[in-house]
Order: sequence, then C-alpha cells, then structure tokens
Amino acid sequence: MDDRLKRQLDFSLELDKEKNVFRQTHLSGHGRSENDAEHAWHMAVMAYVLREYSNAPVDIAKVMLMCLIHDVVEIDAGDTYAYDADSLKTQKAREDAAKERIFSLLPDDQRSELIALFDEFEAYETAESKFAHAMDNLQPLMLNHSNDGDDWRRHSVTSEQIYGRQRKTALGSEKLFEVVDDIIKENIGKGNIKA
Amino acid sequence: MDDRLKRQLDFSLELDKEKNVFRQTHLSGHGRSENDAEHAWHMAVMAYVLREYSNAPVDIAKVMLMCLIHDVVEIDAGDTYAYDADSLKTQKAREDAAKERIFSLLPDDQRSELIALFDEFEAYETAESKFAHAMDNLQPLMLNHSNDGDDWRRHSVTSEQIYGRQRKTALGSEKLFEVVDDIIKENIGKGNIKA
Repeated sequence: MDDRLKRQLDFSLELDKEKNVFRQTHLSGHGRSENDAEHAWHMAVMAYVLREYSNAPVDIAKVMLMCLIHDVVEIDAGDTYAYDADSLKTQKAREDAAKERIFSLLPDDQRSELIALFDEFEAYETAESKFAHAMDNLQPLMLNHSNDGDDWRRHSVTSEQIYGRQRKTALGSEKLFEVVDDIIKENIGKGNIKA
Repeated sequence: MDDRLKRQLDFSLELDKEKNVFRQTHLSGHGRSENDAEHAWHMAVMAYVLREYSNAPVDIAKVMLMCLIHDVVEIDAGDTYAYDADSLKTQKAREDAAKERIFSLLPDDQRSELIALFDEFEAYETAESKFAHAMDNLQPLMLNHSNDGDDWRRHSVTSEQIYGRQRKTALGSEKLFEVVDDIIKENIGKGNIKA
C-alpha cells in the first residue's frame, strides 16, 4: 500500500476514538451521555435539514464537513463543558496540540485542508462557521429540553450562561434563535434554568 | 412556530434514536458495540478523506449525506447483521415501513428528497451509491481487523460470506477493494475468517 493511502487509513482508524469522548448532554428519553461522534453526526444532518434558515447562503457540504470534524481534537483534549470556567481556560492550548497531532496523520495536503476547515469553524466568521455553530448550540439544547432540562438543573446553569453562548446562535440563524429563545424562556419559567 | 419548522425539528429529535441502535461491529481497542449514528458519522468522514479513490467522479456532498442517513430506517427496523440469513429475508419490508414513517415527519418536499436519496443508496447503481456502499463495507472491516477479527470469529463468518458482500466494494473503488482483499486474506490466513 502506498504511503498516502496508509496515512489516510491511519487517520480513519484514529477517528474511531472520538466515539469514546462523552459529553455532558444526555440522549432524549433520559438516556445515557452522548458522545462526540454521535453529536457531530446529528449536527450534520440537522444542518442539511435546516439549511434554509441560515441568515446567509452557505455551501452546505462545507457546513456538514465542519460539523463532522469540529470535535476531532477532543480525542486528545477531552470534552470541555460549555459552562465549566476552569476547563475553558486551558481549552485552546489542549486543542491546538491535539489538532496538530491528529490531522498530521493525514497526507500534507489533507492535513492543511482539514486544519483550515477546523480553524474556520473556530473563528466564527464565515457564514458556514456561524451556521455550523448554530447547530452546535441548537442540537444539545433540543436534547436537554426534551429531557425536561435535566442537564441544566444538574449543573445549576443560569440564564446568563445560556444566553452568553446561545445569543451567538442568532449570528447563524435569526429564525432558529427564536426557537432557542422560546425554549430558554420556557425552561427559566419551569425553574430548570436559574433566572 | 410554523408547521414546516416544527416538522423539521420533530424529525431532528427523532433522529436521536438512531444512537440507540447497536451493530455487531465493535469499536477499535476491543471496545463496546458501535451504534448506527457513530457508524454513519465515521463513513461520512472517511468518504470525504478517501474520495480520490472512487472509480468514478462523485458529488461528495451527496455521498456524505447518503452515508449520514443510510441507516435512519433502523430506528424502527433494527440493525440487520450482514451475515444473518433469516433477518435478511424480512429486512426490506421492515425498512420500507420505517422509511415511510420516519421521513414523513419532514415537510413533503424534504420527505421526497431524502427518500429519493435513501432509495438511490439502496439501488447501488449511481457512482455516489457505489462509493457510499464502499464506505459501508470498509468501515466495519477496518474496525474488525483492528480487533484481530473478533467479530468474524464470534460469528464464524466464512470467506464466501465476506467476499459476497465485499466484492461489491470494488464497484465503488477498485483501489480500496485491494486494501479490503489484503485484509480478508490476512484474516483467512490467521484463521479469523473460515476459508
């Protein structure tokens, strides 16, 4: 087997480890914790189904691929809970090292391409990045809402914390932010999110 | 919320159940069983990374979306093991009913679009379908090979069974079938697959 294909297959096998990175979010039906691979899959399909609500036209293939790879670095860096202030401080350094190691398994051209796509997602500037982030925010909110806000209550999450993250959903989709806002208000009303 | 968006979100939440459909394949590192959502995610990323090996040019966005949704019907129909002759007999009827129920959660235009894409995958005729099937074959073979063929040994799988499925990998990618063929031969040699 030539070196190029070997590297592509080594990367493909390495990806498998993302299925062992578990998040704070629980599956609907008060299920088990969700892992990063499932989360990425769910985001990518949702991005396709909901693409008409992007504020700006998007290259949907790019959005989907962004969704699919946006958590690959967590194979090494682990999941950082969105409302864990201490972990958030070290997140960037941990994820940068992971990004370098994991994408360098690929041939150089694909390494550069996927790092650029990962960085574009992180930068939150392009229409594709903003819409992918809207999915990254909406998907766990939808699951948590379906579970009567269990995850928010368990972590004593406040409306300030939620809006700090979810307001940016509107950068990707004003329309979907309306849904998000309704869900947050309902869960504040029920005491699942601290006012 | 308007009816269209409500239906899209209902479908999105329903998708979550695919994470509870477990396959016969185990994760690398002699891990737990893999579920359909993870499998679909893995296939989609591999399709992107390995797209240069498709026998024919493909619309890679279409291949990725095909990979992402190809097992949605298993939410109702369950996973059918590739080498379980009895389950294979009833698979089509179970999956047809599931396809109708699940995709009908969506607005009509999206229902039609995704059913057409699902059917295109199943028909194994277009370049996109053939390459997506190559991923559906290669991904579990790669994991099983990384686990010293545990899954083949557990099910006493024969080379005839494996080739019956895997020869079609060559319809999508002659190059990747060479890899598959090498892996099969190695595992026959080791006694993991019955000659």
